[in-house]
Amino acid sequence: MSEKPSNLPVNSDRLWGTILETAAFGATPKGGVRRLTLSQEDRKVRDWFKAACEAAGCTVTVDALGNMFALRPGRDPSRAPIGLGSHLDTQPTGGKFDGILGTLAALEVVRTLNDAGIETEAPLCVANWTNEEGSRFAPAMMGSAAFVGDFTVENILGRKDAEGVTVKEALEAIGYVGAAPVGSQPFEAFVELHIEQGPILEAENKTIGVVEHGQGIVWYDGHITGFESHAGSTPMPLRRDALATFSQIVLAVEAIARKHGPDAVGTVGEVTIANPSRNVIPGEVNFTCEFRSPHAEILKALEADFAAAVTEIAAGRKGVTVEIEQVWRKDPTHFDPKVIGAIREAAEGLGYSNRPMVSGAGHDAFNLATRMPVAMIFVSCKDGLSHNELEDATQADCTAGANVLLHTVLSLAGVANAA
Amino acid sequence: MSEKPSNLPVNSDRLWGTILETAAFGATPKGGVRRLTLSQEDRKVRDWFKAACEAAGCTVTVDALGNMFALRPGRDPSRAPIGLGSHLDTQPTGGKFDGILGTLAALEVVRTLNDAGIETEAPLCVANWTNEEGSRFAPAMMGSAAFVGDFTVENILGRKDAEGVTVKEALEAIGYVGAAPVGSQPFEAFVELHIEQGPILEAENKTIGVVEHGQGIVWYDGHITGFESHAGSTPMPLRRDALATFSQIVLAVEAIARKHGPDAVGTVGEVTIANPSRNVIPGEVNFTCEFRSPHAEILKALEADFAAAVTEIAAGRKGVTVEIEQVWRKDPTHFDPKVIGAIREAAEGLGYSNRPMVSGAGHDAFNLATRMPVAMIFVSCKDGLSHNELEDATQADCTAGANVLLHTVLSLAGVANAA
Repeated sequence: MSEKPSNLPVNSDRLWGTILETAAFGATPKGGVRRLTLSQEDRKVRDWFKAACEAAGCTVTVDALGNMFALRPGRDPSRAPIGLGSHLDTQPTGGKFDGILGTLAALEVVRTLNDAGIETEAPLCVANWTNEEGSRFAPAMMGSAAFVGDFTVENILGRKDAEGVTVKEALEAIGYVGAAPVGSQPFEAFVELHIEQGPILEAENKTIGVVEHGQGIVWYDGHITGFESHAGSTPMPLRRDALATFSQIVLAVEAIARKHGPDAVGTVGEVTIANPSRNVIPGEVNFTCEFRSPHAEILKALEADFAAAVTEIAAGRKGVTVEIEQVWRKDPTHFDPKVIGAIREAAEGLGYSNRPMVSGAGHDAFNLATRMPVAMIFVSCKDGLSHNELEDATQADCTAGANVLLHTVLSLAGVANAA
Repeated sequence: MSEKPSNLPVNSDRLWGTILETAAFGATPKGGVRRLTLSQEDRKVRDWFKAACEAAGCTVTVDALGNMFALRPGRDPSRAPIGLGSHLDTQPTGGKFDGILGTLAALEVVRTLNDAGIETEAPLCVANWTNEEGSRFAPAMMGSAAFVGDFTVENILGRKDAEGVTVKEALEAIGYVGAAPVGSQPFEAFVELHIEQGPILEAENKTIGVVEHGQGIVWYDGHITGFESHAGSTPMPLRRDALATFSQIVLAVEAIARKHGPDAVGTVGEVTIANPSRNVIPGEVNFTCEFRSPHAEILKALEADFAAAVTEIAAGRKGVTVEIEQVWRKDPTHFDPKVIGAIREAAEGLGYSNRPMVSGAGHDAFNLATRMPVAMIFVSCKDGLSHNELEDATQADCTAGANVLLHTVLSLAGVANAA
């Protein structure tokens, strides 16, 4: 067993080329990608990915939900493989990097090892998870959630898109109903590289984010009932204005998140008025609201403060009622110290500036973390912008992330022999 | 010339019967009326109304915009007629009284005079104005606005509904393109009876509102531009949240109206988020806003305070811009002292409790007031509710309003002979 080749880089231009090449599957006019899960565009990128992995010497298996696994054998077949990868589906008007970078960088790691003639101790397994985005079928991160047993396969296969097409029908239509049972692929650990989807690395001019936590999250649906009345003839003291009540709640959400900052965020993303009219006082308002924090105790404090604020606001609005339903809750995720350490050491060893980070967004890695040691690598994206055709990242940052992924995987798997 | 018959009442049951009878033209399941202007339901009620006026001895003329005028001759043909009436069209889910009471009470006045054998000095002219509601075609109060020259007939005939049907086509389809030029019907004065559409008379247990003013009104369209970003990964201090900015504006509108109360109201009735999503910070928000006051100086103060508040709110939100466009403005209307006096004397003479009022809503009477002496009579409606299928008023209140209308008209027209 030789020394680990400590500065081996991935082939930056080859990695960048695959990002640009696959962006053609569902390319949008503004330079983004529309590649909804299990669509014909998704089929094309899956076919491309399968052929590329096989050309790189991997054996590709597909499970019953279309999750794809490309296995590169290691010297020690008794060890479960080190997993690496992400997803290839996109938002309806998504970008070229979200998920895609992590999957194609994993392929590039295999290609780089092949070029260098390096065999690892543990096998490697490159993964492409089905429906991370959740835009066509709910829930998001569907493939990895079913993989770890959060949903049954039957439950997921019956989910329908807006046109009434089921996941089962969509999988059959693109030929990605695999023979492998969902959850049967073993992993010793898993590493996911992803763009940050936030502005912190860019703002601090850091290259690598070492993701230690995933935020806990709580989602609410809100319903406010006041009374519709004439905007001209109803005096201010007699109004039961659902929209003014809503506005207090929005500002309370903002204030509560700031109070518990910096490790807390709170957002109202949706609002609709029933029967809106320019000259009618809104009588009924529906909205959604969420809070996130990487710390369990802060998440609980956010929930308590929100409940208290809603009660106080409703009490101050005579004749207005506010109903709040918590529709989803997930405790914070803590990634594995050993995998986190391997990522940090890889970044340091390669000379990349780095910082510990919390992931604000959800990722397949969070689902996997309930069953195996996991951590994530972030690289900067322009203006923190994601879920947008204008999403952008530099070749240098993508390459840096792939290099950290390579050396993290080498550290976790062990090097059997180097050329 | 004999004495005016000082206590002559209208036929309460006959008036109530016509309200219930005509409510069948467009009846809704919850007891309301859907009778959009120039629809087949509108044709039916117009045909009914024309036949009833002719049966009561009136000559009915229709102008080029479908405004209907039923003339009852007076002793002195050199005088222009005293006008009375309102409108028979409704909101999409409207009630049985809004506009309808004023038109059918005007018919009842003629019928009562016929029964009593009373001839007036000046002729009377019962009017049904086209498209007061504005729900199918904009603007609202279309027929009376064109009547006083605020719009040309050609302009109005070309207005389209949501299906692309023009006013001209709709008038032709129901056979109500009249021969009379718009604006040619002379009036010496005009009196409109209407439900209050507000809660004041009910709250103060008063029977008759003597309407002295119409509120001035200013309408705004607002557009807020922030930046869409990920709700999970964008720290609070870096957000450019268009919805939180909007919420501050809503509460500022409410506070400004309260500050200038009680003769001021302010309402935000509509809001939409562009690309709303539960986990995306809203980047673009559009809304509408209005202020009303019966006093010109208060209306100006509301406008100034609103402009200042928007500037201050936008300045406090880095990276967020707020654009406000004033899309309509109308100064307060002051009704005619002589007609107001005639209404107050009629109410007092009949022993009805009454109070001076401001109309919060717009009415055809406001348009007419720019060309002739005008005032309005209000009666209570249940819970102040209007533009709603649950709109309600009592037979006693409707009758009281019709009695005041009768004696106001007798006072203005003069009694030539009484039976």
